[in-house]
Amino acid sequence: MLGQDDDSDGCCPGLLSAPLDEAQAAELAPLFKALGDPVRLRLLSMIASGQGGEVCVCDLTPAFDLSQPTISHHLKLLRQAGLIDSERRGTWVYYRLVPETTDRLADILTRPADSPAPAGAAS
Amino acid sequence: MLGQDDDSDGCCPGLLSAPLDEAQAAELAPLFKALGDPVRLRLLSMIASGQGGEVCVCDLTPAFDLSQPTISHHLKLLRQAGLIDSERRGTWVYYRLVPETTDRLADILTRPADSPAPAGAAS
Repeated sequence: MLGQDDDSDGCCPGLLSAPLDEAQAAELAPLFKALGDPVRLRLLSMIASGQGGEVCVCDLTPAFDLSQPTISHHLKLLRQAGLIDSERRGTWVYYRLVPETTDRLADILTRPADSPAPAGAAS
Repeated sequence: MLGQDDDSDGCCPGLLSAPLDEAQAAELAPLFKALGDPVRLRLLSMIASGQGGEVCVCDLTPAFDLSQPTISHHLKLLRQAGLIDSERRGTWVYYRLVPETTDRLADILTRPADSPAPAGAAS
């Protein structure tokens, strides 16, 4: 809480509208770091686009030339970052997107309305 | 170019609308990785919100308890990722945001309007 430009309304301090303070940057960096790996990006996109909003780990692992423990490790990092959630049902674990987290990142990366309008950016 | 879901119109394959293929994931991951550090996030936000759209390196360094070479290294990683651009004028280097890159990341993280929202999510 270094209070540099803390005029957000409790939601989404824009990355592009005012300098982040140290606390905000320290909170956000692990989220982006979790996305900074191609296997995790593919896992997240498979989970996010899964039928019914969830995907069984048994359907994720075969898509990669990686061991089950390696996939589990990447899934754990995505879960710890708050990007996905999991639920065990019987033998398998099912994963689903936490849309609030990706929404937040999208908001943070969206230019403020008073800057030159980005073509096609969602508000 | 593994061509799994390559139906984008040359712009922005949504991370959340269809599984990324390996090539897309390999291209995107370094961008997120570049953002996965609190110092780089702060640098990017300082640059993006700079008056006149640019910031002199001489104004960036004093904001951190870090050496000039360390700051330069972080700026280089942001530049290599295509998130910022730089121009030397006289003694100093000036940095500015590459808004197309952050726009692209924001688009990628924005849920498709026609997708069934995961549990409890506002559409």
